[in-house]
Amino acid sequence: MELLKEKIKQEGIVLEGSVLKVDTFLNHQVDAELMHEIGRTFEELFSESGVTKIMTIESSGIAPAVMTALRMRVPMVFARKRKSLTLREDLYTERVYSYTKQEESEVTVSRKFLAPSDRVLIIDDFLAHGEAALGMARIVGQAGAEVAGIGILIEKSFQSGRGKLLELGYRVESLARIASLDGGTVTFA
Amino acid sequence: MELLKEKIKQEGIVLEGSVLKVDTFLNHQVDAELMHEIGRTFEELFSESGVTKIMTIESSGIAPAVMTALRMRVPMVFARKRKSLTLREDLYTERVYSYTKQEESEVTVSRKFLAPSDRVLIIDDFLAHGEAALGMARIVGQAGAEVAGIGILIEKSFQSGRGKLLELGYRVESLARIASLDGGTVTFA
Repeated sequence: MELLKEKIKQEGIVLEGSVLKVDTFLNHQVDAELMHEIGRTFEELFSESGVTKIMTIESSGIAPAVMTALRMRVPMVFARKRKSLTLREDLYTERVYSYTKQEESEVTVSRKFLAPSDRVLIIDDFLAHGEAALGMARIVGQAGAEVAGIGILIEKSFQSGRGKLLELGYRVESLARIASLDGGTVTFA
Repeated sequence: MELLKEKIKQEGIVLEGSVLKVDTFLNHQVDAELMHEIGRTFEELFSESGVTKIMTIESSGIAPAVMTALRMRVPMVFARKRKSLTLREDLYTERVYSYTKQEESEVTVSRKFLAPSDRVLIIDDFLAHGEAALGMARIVGQAGAEVAGIGILIEKSFQSGRGKLLELGYRVESLARIASLDGGTVTFA
């Protein structure tokens, strides 16, 4: 998606450890029109996938996910992220490790928001090692529902996430695929 | 706003301690079309207020705030909430107490996203004791910017938040004002 790539080129800041900071339009300040265009793009990509629900993880996934839900006219569910959690019967829970924050968190979704009949489109801001997307996919699996696809805004194609998801048979659509952040420069795939 | 009140009547669940659970359309599962209608309503209410930026706090404020930003064609910033934080020079920080969770957290906004010329519309899902809105308003003040108004989805009018905000001279627009949750029943003001 050219609009997103342009924005990354203009405003993205490469930090140490292959971190790409996009807090001017996605992670802290949010460009609502860009999010709407992203929603429109995912709508087009997954229009034939029978999507009944959008799923993401708080917080940065919420803006693009709610725009995708608006375009596709289906509900959105955002998984809650917590550092530790007492196991509760009414929740699906998965552990997700964040390489950026170097900590594990519990990701939870209320059981009442996923049914076996659901076809879930997973949306997330970043795909790197795939931990968050895999955690969400496992939650969809716990519910006996199907993953209709995985829509990513920014993929770090030099990391392992995409490969892991494809290996499991998921369809992955990333709007901006980054081949390298070497030397502080964004190079698209 | 009738649409929101209808939804609260149909799907809201009153829990102990005056907690209103609205996780089927706002706090966990999100009704994107309702959020868009809410954005449209805030756009109408604040169209003459010279709004240059929308501000909210993660996570439940993000969906209505991004829709308001889409309608008003201005950027949205969501404040980060953390349990404790080392003070950083590049951040505005305020302490906010949550009566529901009975814990204090630090709310932060990057300094680069607020300028003295900004007129900020604060959006939040709930107004009860006013802690979150007051924290955001203080951050706007720290930046030397102005609060253009405060837009709330669900106001617990039987608690003190609205009064505190009005006393400070802020314009408060709440889309659903709840007079009482006594006996497990939602009574609108």
